[in-house]
Amino acid sequence: MIIVMKTEATESQVMAIQKHIRELGFKDHLIRGVERNVVAVLGAVYPELLDEFSVLDGVDSAVRISKPFKLASREVKEEDTIVKVGPLEIGNGRLVVMAGPCSVDTEENVMVAARAVKAAGAHMLRGGAFKPRTSPYAFRGHGEKGLKILAAARAETGLPIVTEVMDARDVDLVARYADVLQIGSRNMQNFSLLDEVGKAQKPVLLKRGMWATIEEWLLAAEYILSHGNRDVILCERGIRSHETATRFTFDITAIPLVKRLSHLPIIADPSHATGKWYLVPPIALAAVAAGVDGIIIEVHPNPDHALSDGAQSLTPANFEKLMGQVRTLAEAVGRPVAPPIEQPAKKAVKKAS
Amino acid sequence: MIIVMKTEATESQVMAIQKHIRELGFKDHLIRGVERNVVAVLGAVYPELLDEFSVLDGVDSAVRISKPFKLASREVKEEDTIVKVGPLEIGNGRLVVMAGPCSVDTEENVMVAARAVKAAGAHMLRGGAFKPRTSPYAFRGHGEKGLKILAAARAETGLPIVTEVMDARDVDLVARYADVLQIGSRNMQNFSLLDEVGKAQKPVLLKRGMWATIEEWLLAAEYILSHGNRDVILCERGIRSHETATRFTFDITAIPLVKRLSHLPIIADPSHATGKWYLVPPIALAAVAAGVDGIIIEVHPNPDHALSDGAQSLTPANFEKLMGQVRTLAEAVGRPVAPPIEQPAKKAVKKAS
Amino acid sequence: MIIVMKTEATESQVMAIQKHIRELGFKDHLIRGVERNVVAVLGAVYPELLDEFSVLDGVDSAVRISKPFKLASREVKEEDTIVKVGPLEIGNGRLVVMAGPCSVDTEENVMVAARAVKAAGAHMLRGGAFKPRTSPYAFRGHGEKGLKILAAARAETGLPIVTEVMDARDVDLVARYADVLQIGSRNMQNFSLLDEVGKAQKPVLLKRGMWATIEEWLLAAEYILSHGNRDVILCERGIRSHETATRFTFDITAIPLVKRLSHLPIIADPSHATGKWYLVPPIALAAVAAGVDGIIIEVHPNPDHALSDGAQSLTPANFEKLMGQVRTLAEAVGRPVAPPIEQPAKKAVKKAS
Amino acid sequence: MIIVMKTEATESQVMAIQKHIRELGFKDHLIRGVERNVVAVLGAVYPELLDEFSVLDGVDSAVRISKPFKLASREVKEEDTIVKVGPLEIGNGRLVVMAGPCSVDTEENVMVAARAVKAAGAHMLRGGAFKPRTSPYAFRGHGEKGLKILAAARAETGLPIVTEVMDARDVDLVARYADVLQIGSRNMQNFSLLDEVGKAQKPVLLKRGMWATIEEWLLAAEYILSHGNRDVILCERGIRSHETATRFTFDITAIPLVKRLSHLPIIADPSHATGKWYLVPPIALAAVAAGVDGIIIEVHPNPDHALSDGAQSLTPANFEKLMGQVRTLAEAVGRPVAPPIEQPAKKAVKKAS
Repeated sequence: MIIVMKTEATESQVMAIQKHIRELGFKDHLIRGVERNVVAVLGAVYPELLDEFSVLDGVDSAVRISKPFKLASREVKEEDTIVKVGPLEIGNGRLVVMAGPCSVDTEENVMVAARAVKAAGAHMLRGGAFKPRTSPYAFRGHGEKGLKILAAARAETGLPIVTEVMDARDVDLVARYADVLQIGSRNMQNFSLLDEVGKAQKPVLLKRGMWATIEEWLLAAEYILSHGNRDVILCERGIRSHETATRFTFDITAIPLVKRLSHLPIIADPSHATGKWYLVPPIALAAVAAGVDGIIIEVHPNPDHALSDGAQSLTPANFEKLMGQVRTLAEAVGRPVAPPIEQPAKKAVKKAS
Repeated sequence: MIIVMKTEATESQVMAIQKHIRELGFKDHLIRGVERNVVAVLGAVYPELLDEFSVLDGVDSAVRISKPFKLASREVKEEDTIVKVGPLEIGNGRLVVMAGPCSVDTEENVMVAARAVKAAGAHMLRGGAFKPRTSPYAFRGHGEKGLKILAAARAETGLPIVTEVMDARDVDLVARYADVLQIGSRNMQNFSLLDEVGKAQKPVLLKRGMWATIEEWLLAAEYILSHGNRDVILCERGIRSHETATRFTFDITAIPLVKRLSHLPIIADPSHATGKWYLVPPIALAAVAAGVDGIIIEVHPNPDHALSDGAQSLTPANFEKLMGQVRTLAEAVGRPVAPPIEQPAKKAVKKAS
Repeated sequence: MIIVMKTEATESQVMAIQKHIRELGFKDHLIRGVERNVVAVLGAVYPELLDEFSVLDGVDSAVRISKPFKLASREVKEEDTIVKVGPLEIGNGRLVVMAGPCSVDTEENVMVAARAVKAAGAHMLRGGAFKPRTSPYAFRGHGEKGLKILAAARAETGLPIVTEVMDARDVDLVARYADVLQIGSRNMQNFSLLDEVGKAQKPVLLKRGMWATIEEWLLAAEYILSHGNRDVILCERGIRSHETATRFTFDITAIPLVKRLSHLPIIADPSHATGKWYLVPPIALAAVAAGVDGIIIEVHPNPDHALSDGAQSLTPANFEKLMGQVRTLAEAVGRPVAPPIEQPAKKAVKKAS
Repeated sequence: MIIVMKTEATESQVMAIQKHIRELGFKDHLIRGVERNVVAVLGAVYPELLDEFSVLDGVDSAVRISKPFKLASREVKEEDTIVKVGPLEIGNGRLVVMAGPCSVDTEENVMVAARAVKAAGAHMLRGGAFKPRTSPYAFRGHGEKGLKILAAARAETGLPIVTEVMDARDVDLVARYADVLQIGSRNMQNFSLLDEVGKAQKPVLLKRGMWATIEEWLLAAEYILSHGNRDVILCERGIRSHETATRFTFDITAIPLVKRLSHLPIIADPSHATGKWYLVPPIALAAVAAGVDGIIIEVHPNPDHALSDGAQSLTPANFEKLMGQVRTLAEAVGRPVAPPIEQPAKKAVKKAS
């Protein structure tokens, strides 16, 4: 941390700062400038110090010079983290595709969707059993019943499941069914929930808060990592800006920047970011070109009658078309699509009998 | 809801829309325009319909024409809601002041702060026993021990307590000690938590999410109200914008606008909004001039050594000075400061013994 | 400027940075930290250096430690600047009120508005002869004819005129009629225009760009000041944020912050910020409480038929009511409203004849 | 336009609205709803009407239902506009690459850069002779001398030139040298300048304002188109958001959305959006995947010594590498890179002599 003194700061104010630094257990280092003096604070400073020093007498501002996240940082761990989800690897240089309905409605719809996305080449099934809704009057998900539907779809197709957990009390329940626990955008700083999934034995998909800086996002990952769960997948899903023509502003630059700052894998959610199905394919392709490790896409057999977010869901036919484009593009940028998931053995046995 | 057809939409597309409206149980009403046709949807439409219609064939856009919140709306309840907190009333036209340390650190500091803010004329004591922190490495509060310290300060001073609850599992615990349950900005859309405080028998202070529109904020209040808890106090505490010179951008205009849209009382938190103690007094005064029902101010006996947010805390002396300014201003704008809280009888008894 | 090296930076990378600093004519100063090294750059660094150093080998980031504006800074000039506009002083501790129609439409309307705002106690007349309009199909102002109408209104009422100039080619023309040249929000970084008004002999009212940081705003003022025109009045008029319920987000905190960073006077424009007449009074009062030197308010005799921005204009009756509230509040916060402008002598003579 | 009445609006208020609509020359159409009444306004309404109606008695809100831009709209002109620049076509389905230094510094540097970008396959040369700078103390460009250097580079390489014009007074001068007139982000709503380039006989590259909605951007294009200049190329270059880790937030979704709303070609500027050279290639590739008609890239022979924006400039070697990636990707998405520009005949003649 660097403490910049005011041009008119007195010698005794500078000395008071130096004394305060030492009292807190840090080392100080004074640099005399042409216009003003600067005091460097050496040692393991924490973010809060910044504001605290910035209001002391004679201080103009305090400036942090190291990143506040450690475990999530590429400075601490240089090689890419590869998250294993059953037979799948996320972050190994091959593109992973997650797809499925926004919310789990009927078993039939989920089965149809699961078979369709599997047939088109998706590697994981997504679907919400617990749904965050802006209005208390909207459909909020089927809960455990929905989880069972997802599990049935996995049993048939072999696709691992990613599904959202919204409440620290539900982490155990959701972890019994899901392969990956999803933390939604609105819960990115629900610290109780982050603590709880940090203790779970399942990989976590951490969506970026629509208000969050990249640094705050990596700090949210740090919560999970600091509990010993090292399997965190980041997911860019759009931030708030002044633009209202799209639901959110997809921050494409976050992708290469996160890759540089962190070793964690990152995927893109163009469905929630854009809010319109016809914007999903171009943004999915853009994310692949920018270097994501995966994409997560809403697909519904009958979007016009979906219980939530039909407007942003692709039909199976549109998804299949997108998969073709993704395959070509992924190949072109040297990050080919991961091989398909094998049909579960159980099923093969049944056929044999 | 109004469905605007494309200029080139065909008659059969218009008829398909009308049919779809009727299938969903609504009435339709076609308006033929010069350039394009418009179909009105009559009935109790819900927000999700908007996106769903907007992607149908021949549709240019769908436009909502009624507010999505009901119980929070002034259209539904015209007279101001007055929230009672022990001897206090919030929203009755007199200004209420809440003050105290950001986080509860030592009993001594809290007692000193409580006495100081009481002496200066504050009506409630604030202080965090559970603290949301951006970094997992920062101080996160003393939990129940902190609640007990707050209760002790209340016992002595008579000041009701407002304190944050961050986890649905802690609502009962916090409600045993607190007079008002605070929902922090990052939890404004933690729907499990909103459900839980909606079932509690305590008033709720609902801070605005730093990303939230006023409409989303009122919908979060609607969650609480819809569970039967009608005692919701809104709190503006700044939103994210591109300006980085202040921690957040305090949205002063939200105050008169919320007053117009809703019957709920609204207070201002200039300490978290600005992040710097020297900006707190002007923003507190501005909020009073704009019509708030109360202000909540961080005060710490020794801000330089506070465990969190020292930079934004006033010293007792600065708080006393601010209270003088607030009193004059509140009088001038016709919303005088509420009368002081009486010392608890228990205390008088003790003195007598 | 401080150059923060990566933790893994080599000694030779550090030395290369030091060499580069010296080649550019600055002094370097190496600080060896626990985790990483930091190199301070001493001398008159310029903002561009920041990005340039930040991409050199071994560099983690570069951090500026001094403000980029000089002439606008309170560090350079401690005492408040007082801008003189005829008989008026702006920035002397008394509140100045500017009022009038958004655009100059008919001479009659302007005269009625001018008399009304004068009668209610306004000190200056505002009105647009050149209007920036988002759409090319909207009314764009009467040009010089409009300026003449404003001048006639000044001749009768004695109120100095503030009016916008949008084009560097019009500065001389507008300066012949206006007492204060207004730079609109969209032109805050129209550098040719800033250069031109910097050479004019008239005070400049510089509105904040809706995208601009406070620092960029003060740098825009610096353009004008650097040409020798020291009479710059800043005007906060709202910034863009995600909130769409109001036209802009009025940044109330900018007021005390600008007062701290700069010696220039600052006024508030609640009419353009809010876009709705009923939000204008509370935001005007809030701005006064926060410490502005003046307010600028749209008033139109018949807002429903105004050629632009009728929705945000007060009627003369509402303006008179607001002036009463402003007077009481301004007195309460110790910044009383400036004394009224005297009727022009010419007029008195005419009456005598 | 749709006027939504308040639930408590009286019949006479509704009738007053209907009367007002007819007085303004429009047709009205009343729709009686369950909760409230709605009045449709039929005819060629203009944007300003919206705010004006929204504040009338009994009105809850007014909602626009048609786009405010006409000439820029795909509803008015369905087929893609192809802008011709000498031998080049922009918008014909083949990707165009513009490259060169941020500002024109020395003739030697520009020549080296021009030859390098030509050799790597760029189709146009970019470079600033007039530079908008946040600070008045930064390098502001060489003016006409810079234009002559660019013209010399064109003479040798055959690459058409795109360069910025910042002042309405300079349009003729710049148009004498440039093939495409660039309007910078900060000037997107400099309406005098838009008028002037609308009258010029040269194509215009219109960068998006960092604060602008897509609608405002298309309205700025409408200014130019409405003067008869139909050769407008849009350029996405990032908007302001709360994220500070990158200079701007590149709005990737604007690309497919603009393609849907408008027939004008659109290109991407990843250099200014990101501010860091190492983020330029992934964002350039993402833009191509999302469907742009071209990209504009900063290239400088010696970025560390460039007079402006060295941090975001690629070296010729990095640019060549990027061109290889772009070619592969553009092929994969079915929008191959345009064929190379031929060497000027004049040059060949010279060699012969």
